[in-house]
Amino acid sequence: MTKKLNILMFSCEYDKALAAFILADSARAIDMEVSMFFAFWGLFLLRTPDKLDYKDKTNLEKMFGAVTPKGPDELPLSRMNFSGFGKFMLKKMMKDDDAPTLKGLLEEAHKKGVNFYCCKLSSEVMGIKKDELPYKTKIMTAEDYLNDALNSDIQLFI
Amino acid sequence: MTKKLNILMFSCEYDKALAAFILADSARAIDMEVSMFFAFWGLFLLRTPDKLDYKDKTNLEKMFGAVTPKGPDELPLSRMNFSGFGKFMLKKMMKDDDAPTLKGLLEEAHKKGVNFYCCKLSSEVMGIKKDELPYKTKIMTAEDYLNDALNSDIQLFI
Amino acid sequence: MTKKLNILMFSCEYDKALAAFILADSARAIDMEVSMFFAFWGLFLLRTPDKLDYKDKTNLEKMFGAVTPKGPDELPLSRMNFSGFGKFMLKKMMKDDDAPTLKGLLEEAHKKGVNFYCCKLSSEVMGIKKDELPYKTKIMTAEDYLNDALNSDIQLFI
Repeated sequence: MTKKLNILMFSCEYDKALAAFILADSARAIDMEVSMFFAFWGLFLLRTPDKLDYKDKTNLEKMFGAVTPKGPDELPLSRMNFSGFGKFMLKKMMKDDDAPTLKGLLEEAHKKGVNFYCCKLSSEVMGIKKDELPYKTKIMTAEDYLNDALNSDIQLFI
Repeated sequence: MTKKLNILMFSCEYDKALAAFILADSARAIDMEVSMFFAFWGLFLLRTPDKLDYKDKTNLEKMFGAVTPKGPDELPLSRMNFSGFGKFMLKKMMKDDDAPTLKGLLEEAHKKGVNFYCCKLSSEVMGIKKDELPYKTKIMTAEDYLNDALNSDIQLFI
Repeated sequence: MTKKLNILMFSCEYDKALAAFILADSARAIDMEVSMFFAFWGLFLLRTPDKLDYKDKTNLEKMFGAVTPKGPDELPLSRMNFSGFGKFMLKKMMKDDDAPTLKGLLEEAHKKGVNFYCCKLSSEVMGIKKDELPYKTKIMTAEDYLNDALNSDIQLFI
């Protein structure tokens, strides 16, 4: 029977997102099913600058949207950020080693059939609309997440 | 058979605690059993200002107790804190959306029968006494946690 | 049948590492098998200052190696670090309570047969060589990790 990996993507740091998508892509490579449930800051991973929509948002939502990261290229590191220098080094070294980029990993995950789910409450609270998300995603409640996680063999909170 | 969610609550950030209690309350709503094992900073989630007890503490424990958060309302965010501004925005948006508060979620979890366990080593090291914790909690060792986690269907480290 | 704990050690904060090794050692104490997969910053936990090797490294790798933590004693806390003061307090309180040190826990884990695995991609990207790691470790890919995690009863991302 197909094995399944379930990732609750809470964080939006560049390095944690790299880890999550490397796991997701590797799981697909060994024919595992993969669910990624994007909640809280994790939602920012899916935003892209050209899809931002300020219509119908409250002022607070607009302000929040303006100061938060707008997609994978803007994310800070969880450690060693040094105002971006640590991230520059990490990206440079990964390039030197021909390691994939976050954007590349995310798109590969999407292409290879990783299921992207968005947390309903988070997207409502943060005022992020489904149209702003460039990938095929399904809105799910926390209960939906739990049912999906119960049917998974590995569950990680990242 | 009843399914079970086990959360090792290590962090004490406002947003991570929100996520944990939303999961705990949602799990109870679909009749799952829930264990929350509060360890390290996670213990601070259970403290309330009016229950602090400085008797029988070493000076170091008193000092540590004084500079650490005293319950759910004092917790910072894991990201975007901006000296409290990010948290203010998040709380405000959650209120606008009628989303529950951390304190409300915590009390609902307690009322709905989520099992609260405190890490024995952490409470000893941090000098937090059982009487300082306002909720019905049981002291547990790391081995007890592992046995509980082994009997769970989902285990998360938050 | 033997139960198994699998920890993906992504972080390198002092407190998170403490939590991970306390769990690993406790799991061994109740006869569980334990795998620790060190990836990203988690790799720094295994480095020791006297084993650093700058030969055959690119300048970027050397620079990165120089500014990153060189083993368990150099790690910051995930919270409350206060330029080292929070860590000093935590270590002091743990000593007063005869709680084990991180270095002690790590060595106990190694001695008691916890399996140490290093992430292949991370060690390549960060330019950390196997000879720099003082413990018996095996290099593993993300796919190897997933297969190990699939055969485990508890999987945690720390």
